[in-house]
Amino acid sequence: MNVNLAHYLAAGKEQVDQQLDRYLPAADRAPERLHQAMRYAMLGGGGKRIRPILALATAEALGYPGSRVMPLACALECIHTYSLIHDDLPAMDDDDLRRGRPSCHRAFDEATAILAGDALLTLAFEILSEPRTDFEPAAQLVALRQLANAAGVAGMVGGQMLDLLAENRSIGLPELQNIHIHKTGAMIRVACLGAATLCNATPEQTRALKRYGEAIGLAFQIMDDLLDEIGDSAVMGKATGSDRRQAKSTYPQLMGVTQAQEKAQDLITDALQMMDCFSDQADPLRLIARFIISRAC
Amino acid sequence: MNVNLAHYLAAGKEQVDQQLDRYLPAADRAPERLHQAMRYAMLGGGGKRIRPILALATAEALGYPGSRVMPLACALECIHTYSLIHDDLPAMDDDDLRRGRPSCHRAFDEATAILAGDALLTLAFEILSEPRTDFEPAAQLVALRQLANAAGVAGMVGGQMLDLLAENRSIGLPELQNIHIHKTGAMIRVACLGAATLCNATPEQTRALKRYGEAIGLAFQIMDDLLDEIGDSAVMGKATGSDRRQAKSTYPQLMGVTQAQEKAQDLITDALQMMDCFSDQADPLRLIARFIISRAC
Repeated sequence: MNVNLAHYLAAGKEQVDQQLDRYLPAADRAPERLHQAMRYAMLGGGGKRIRPILALATAEALGYPGSRVMPLACALECIHTYSLIHDDLPAMDDDDLRRGRPSCHRAFDEATAILAGDALLTLAFEILSEPRTDFEPAAQLVALRQLANAAGVAGMVGGQMLDLLAENRSIGLPELQNIHIHKTGAMIRVACLGAATLCNATPEQTRALKRYGEAIGLAFQIMDDLLDEIGDSAVMGKATGSDRRQAKSTYPQLMGVTQAQEKAQDLITDALQMMDCFSDQADPLRLIARFIISRAC
Repeated sequence: MNVNLAHYLAAGKEQVDQQLDRYLPAADRAPERLHQAMRYAMLGGGGKRIRPILALATAEALGYPGSRVMPLACALECIHTYSLIHDDLPAMDDDDLRRGRPSCHRAFDEATAILAGDALLTLAFEILSEPRTDFEPAAQLVALRQLANAAGVAGMVGGQMLDLLAENRSIGLPELQNIHIHKTGAMIRVACLGAATLCNATPEQTRALKRYGEAIGLAFQIMDDLLDEIGDSAVMGKATGSDRRQAKSTYPQLMGVTQAQEKAQDLITDALQMMDCFSDQADPLRLIARFIISRAC
């Protein structure tokens, strides 16, 4: 399978954005301000849609068209976007910039941003519970539960709390890793796991896809830390060095830049190994893994 | 059917509280602070559990034990509690007191309160997607979608936004009613509608239960306005007169106290009429409707 990753990612993002545009309430319907804030956070900022594209690529690895898991893909992005809106709030990370633009509470106001986040989280489950004819309601329920589990206290929200509790004190590698596994890892893992559920993966395939997701999720976060440490704020679209200024523990800080790069590389090697039991239909997943290690933003 | 409403409500609340206690993560597991905040908001404050009890009573009206819809009942309460936590935040209604105790962000902090709300909203969908053997996954998915729809932009969150947008300007009755239909009405309506879905109600029964929910939901809100206007803060467990101080439009303000009371009474009469097609198994629903009009807090 001959895949150009740049084209693949661009095409995936376009499909996901088109579908998100359909799912989001119209910007001119009351309450306009809320719908505008949801659309601003979701569609205006040029997100890469890594989680949705991982779901589409997982479906393809299992021999299905990506469109089969489009509701899951959009639900993942709704949850990711809500988490960014709430994380940026003054009471949380207090970030004024997101993807090169004012964050949602700066472009609108705090109350609207809180509600836009709440609405997007809720919309994720409305999308994923949409009646479908192409798979069993039982599988849809399982995927929905996997998504809720990954997004909630046992996953992303729990990780965000752990992260806040770790602020302004020094933590060790195991604690840092535990934060990342929850805060960012759970949602990347469930992109693969949920798509596997909706595409009738065998237990062996499911296990491999889950471990692939775990490995690239952690590698992605290590690269994020590295880019914050050494990246260029103009390329990143947000202030860099913010972790250091906020006295946050990071991989490069705890391991050194070189060792953190090696660790990310090892994780990508593991992820690629997990793909051994798949045909070349899994090439997009393979390329995405390699892309994570090479990305500049 | 001879039902003592006080006993019925107390028994329902106890069953729901027991089950919520099982669903909530243990308070001594990391991140403890988040779990404690969730439990504080959910279990410590003596909520009446009106929405969950409506779901249980609806199941009984349809000839099923209330326990059949317990996951829906608990999901409803998770969403209701999250909405109170977020509504109380400084950027929203800025309330220091809730049910006679410090609100969640006062007892913990703003970041923890935001995350506890996010976690409870997510938990609602995790609970309702739990595998069950006693009903069809397809019905479970429909109920889940009804719940997400009622909780999101088309329902409660949209209503909260409309409410914020109406602050500090005078609005008329149609706009006030529109706010209430969304902000509080949608979740009360879906308590009955979701339970009807999970209990194989006929289309006629579903329509009656939905209209019952709509009528008592609006009556409940009118009574809330009336109690804020004329109630006793010691009995209410929160400051009264706050609507007036915040220059919020209310039913008593727009219609006068007597007319607002009459309007609530008319709605309860409508709700009782909707119960005509049910046997005495619907007596709890009938008593709850009458209770709403007579409540003092």
